[in-house]
Amino acid sequence: MSDLTNAAVASTRCPPLRIALAGLGAVGAGVIRLVETNAELIARRAGRPVIITAVSARDRAKNRNVDLSPFAWEDDMTAMAARDDVDVVVELVGGADGPALTLARNAITHGKALVTANKAMIAHHGMELARVAEQKGVALRFEAAVAGGIPVIKALREGAAANKVERIYGILNGTCNYILSTMEDTGRSFADVLDEAQQKGYAEADPTFDIEGTDAAHKLSILSAIAFGSQIDFASVDTSGISRISAADIAEAEALGYIIRLIGMAESDVGPDGKARLFQRVQPHLVPRDNLLAHVDGATNAVVVEGNFSGRLLFQGAGAGDGPTASAVVADIIDIARGMDTGFEADMSFSISVAELEAMAPAPSGHRSGRSYIRFIVADRPGVLAEIAAAMRDAGVSIESLIQKGHASNEGAAEDGVLVAMVTHEGPEEAVGKALALLDGSTSLTQPPLVLHILND
Amino acid sequence: MSDLTNAAVASTRCPPLRIALAGLGAVGAGVIRLVETNAELIARRAGRPVIITAVSARDRAKNRNVDLSPFAWEDDMTAMAARDDVDVVVELVGGADGPALTLARNAITHGKALVTANKAMIAHHGMELARVAEQKGVALRFEAAVAGGIPVIKALREGAAANKVERIYGILNGTCNYILSTMEDTGRSFADVLDEAQQKGYAEADPTFDIEGTDAAHKLSILSAIAFGSQIDFASVDTSGISRISAADIAEAEALGYIIRLIGMAESDVGPDGKARLFQRVQPHLVPRDNLLAHVDGATNAVVVEGNFSGRLLFQGAGAGDGPTASAVVADIIDIARGMDTGFEADMSFSISVAELEAMAPAPSGHRSGRSYIRFIVADRPGVLAEIAAAMRDAGVSIESLIQKGHASNEGAAEDGVLVAMVTHEGPEEAVGKALALLDGSTSLTQPPLVLHILND
Repeated sequence: MSDLTNAAVASTRCPPLRIALAGLGAVGAGVIRLVETNAELIARRAGRPVIITAVSARDRAKNRNVDLSPFAWEDDMTAMAARDDVDVVVELVGGADGPALTLARNAITHGKALVTANKAMIAHHGMELARVAEQKGVALRFEAAVAGGIPVIKALREGAAANKVERIYGILNGTCNYILSTMEDTGRSFADVLDEAQQKGYAEADPTFDIEGTDAAHKLSILSAIAFGSQIDFASVDTSGISRISAADIAEAEALGYIIRLIGMAESDVGPDGKARLFQRVQPHLVPRDNLLAHVDGATNAVVVEGNFSGRLLFQGAGAGDGPTASAVVADIIDIARGMDTGFEADMSFSISVAELEAMAPAPSGHRSGRSYIRFIVADRPGVLAEIAAAMRDAGVSIESLIQKGHASNEGAAEDGVLVAMVTHEGPEEAVGKALALLDGSTSLTQPPLVLHILND
Repeated sequence: MSDLTNAAVASTRCPPLRIALAGLGAVGAGVIRLVETNAELIARRAGRPVIITAVSARDRAKNRNVDLSPFAWEDDMTAMAARDDVDVVVELVGGADGPALTLARNAITHGKALVTANKAMIAHHGMELARVAEQKGVALRFEAAVAGGIPVIKALREGAAANKVERIYGILNGTCNYILSTMEDTGRSFADVLDEAQQKGYAEADPTFDIEGTDAAHKLSILSAIAFGSQIDFASVDTSGISRISAADIAEAEALGYIIRLIGMAESDVGPDGKARLFQRVQPHLVPRDNLLAHVDGATNAVVVEGNFSGRLLFQGAGAGDGPTASAVVADIIDIARGMDTGFEADMSFSISVAELEAMAPAPSGHRSGRSYIRFIVADRPGVLAEIAAAMRDAGVSIESLIQKGHASNEGAAEDGVLVAMVTHEGPEEAVGKALALLDGSTSLTQPPLVLHILND
């Protein structure tokens, strides 16, 4: 906000908070609807009216089922950053770079508060943007970037602020959760369910970011920074997606007492130099049936925060959708409006100053201890099981249970072999890697093996 | 905080926030341990060190496994409100009135921020205390008063602030939830499980406040005020406890696809005069097996907030215990410390100014529509079922399903008759009341009937 505007606002309790909205897709239209539908209630809770003054999007003519006529239109969204009648810029354009980043940088530089739902931009440029926002004394808020309408950023920044977070994990991508829980309910294949999800609009035309785990990794890296007081380190998130999960994997997991979910998980440990390291992983996991996340179905998101005093806290709700995401955007706007009431305009986007966020080294996965599910598709001939078992033994992997299924019962898993699935006893993850290395190149395996970690309690 | 102290604090970022702690039970000792264990992290997140300067409790000599020697001791806890070396008074004494209320009033009057875990005091005197706190410009915070370590007050005040809340409901009493889920797991009687819970320390020596629903009603009335922008109206909470739930009720509910939980629920409707009314109820409910709350076992608490844009949000965690409650207390302290950084010392305890909270009339339950579970213990003789069925018919209650059990299978429900349990179709609650009135005085009933509402989706 410009100094002039700031002074004007500070002089009385009543002047409205003026919003510029960049991006008028489903969420942008949702924000307009929310600001209008709940106007009176928002004004009471914010201590002042919240009004939209300017909007911008690529296509002015598109029908969005909202009346844009009360708002100034900008063809060039970056121009909104310099408007005198704007206090807060809401960026709903998306994309890590490009116009979204240009707008964000400009808005903050011009002293506007920035509210964004853009997880990719925050994951890649959040440190830079937060640093400038602190220098400028403006708010940078991104509740809507993680877990849709669930106020989990606030829960971590404030609600659980007294705790050393020991672990944070959750279901951060609604598309993957919808696909996996539908596969579970129907026994259908990944490709089949993805296809249907695309037709229904639950998955994008290009679903890569969702199904390969990138979207969840963006969100996890943001949560990690707040939870552990570390700089965002998206590049170190050990990420894999759900496209290799077969109907047979889901059936085997179920038989063993698990469901399969794409889980983002982060925790800190201490490296050999005595310094704290950060471990971040987004991967499909086997989730025990009695886990808090075992009942999270469909497009729902859920995050578990384990604090050293709070114990385990669960936050669950819609992970996407125009209403929930708009709810998070406007919660940030109300916080900003409340702060302005009293001169408290900006606080720390990541709970502490960017300068104080540690550059934590990534913790390697090899030293980690846990249980794993390993699935092989193997040639149907004698000696194959002995070969696998020998590799496990030689690498020191202890097998807890094992299922081998013939062609007939191999529910669509593979055309090219039979399925051998096992669950290991607790042991170092690197031992599993060693066992698979011993099997690398073996003609007994007709597909690369699939390893899924078991979410431990 | 005194003006002098305030000025000193405002002059630099570094001076510590100084806490006086009244009440050194398990939670008080937990707050001391938390402030010490996580001191560095709290200082970073609060922007200043948080230190305890003074403590008070009834018995100075009692062993609490914490070292009190660094703190000034006050025999008279009210004296802490006037100490110059105190910025925030933390009240953990308990009780709606008496010393806790005297301390709270004095602290606020002396310009100290007040943090409390005292649900009874806030339920009865929260409006008065918040009004004075606003006049004095000091913070009054009570995150720890509702649902232990779960930041649900913050979620309502801030995280879901953009929403018109349509309904809020949850499991707000860990003792009742422990008893009911243990009865469910073991088939044992209420009296038996309560006895064990008392021996294990999960229930108090006098468990009345917990098992009769008063504690949950305190909490619900606080949540309602924030969710609906209404004045706290504890007296209007339609409250009943769990002491009449029998093992047979739990078994019948299970056979019908439900679990039994003590649920606090509030929603608003519109009265005949066009004004919004508030309905608040704490009662054991039948919870459908697919409800979000159906997997909440043991001493856990969980709250569901239904917002008109956010959709359904679930917040779950430990509802009591020294660690979780201390986590909530210190979260409030950190919020206060952060606000002081920037001159933002107090905000609205109930999300909006007390003066703006509406005096909503209580909505009567009779007009409500829903499904009910009705359990009779009846004399084992011909014609009894016909009598009950006729009363239902005459009152317009439509029966969806009915179970009658003979003595042999009447799992400890009653010595004095056989059990008849039914579930009604959706209909007005007053019709059920009418049916029971028709049966009032009937010699066929050997106990007063038990009515439990079914939590609707």
